[in-house]
Amino acid sequence: MPYISTTPKPPYYAVIFTSINAPIDQTEHVEMYGRLIQHAQAFDGFLGIEGARNPDGTGVAAVYWRDLDSIQAWAKDPQHQVAKVKGREVWYSHYMIRICRVEREYGRPDR
Amino acid sequence: MPYISTTPKPPYYAVIFTSINAPIDQTEHVEMYGRLIQHAQAFDGFLGIEGARNPDGTGVAAVYWRDLDSIQAWAKDPQHQVAKVKGREVWYSHYMIRICRVEREYGRPDR
Repeated sequence: MPYISTTPKPPYYAVIFTSINAPIDQTEHVEMYGRLIQHAQAFDGFLGIEGARNPDGTGVAAVYWRDLDSIQAWAKDPQHQVAKVKGREVWYSHYMIRICRVEREYGRPDR
Repeated sequence: MPYISTTPKPPYYAVIFTSINAPIDQTEHVEMYGRLIQHAQAFDGFLGIEGARNPDGTGVAAVYWRDLDSIQAWAKDPQHQVAKVKGREVWYSHYMIRICRVEREYGRPDR
């Protein structure tokens, strides 16, 4: 499976999710996060996710969506809401979410 | 130094740079990349960078800029242009660049 998301001609949307893992055991986080991404893939408008984490626990994920409506629908999903509470209260010491409109893209993707 | 960039009230811009390291020695890449970020910080309109790389060589960086003009000025910088050629031809097997307008942000930053 390619790492770089196959995205349509812009405009579309990106959610940049930056986080710093709390100094706790990450087993539950990794497991629930994996399931959540699987779940997101079933959502209309989900385009892909590209994520990375450094050895010190800092990380960035870019999640791509067709439009603001699909981001809104995902925000209301019960499984996602449980994960958001876990993220705020347990998994992350700090985090930032930025909602962005992708205006241009270019590169050499792995597909 | 905080990991999460201190960004102004939106709108501002994000460049999402996704890359897969080529299977080569990364010493030069890491060293030049570090110097390039130092250099970018001197540019008017540079707001910050949040990057992460996985053990398999895949990675994401979000670079924040005040506006499209500051992104343009950085694109024309000679040191940056040398690095771009290196990136395309040597450092990365695959990459993608997405220029985005940040419309909303929220979170709990580490500052």
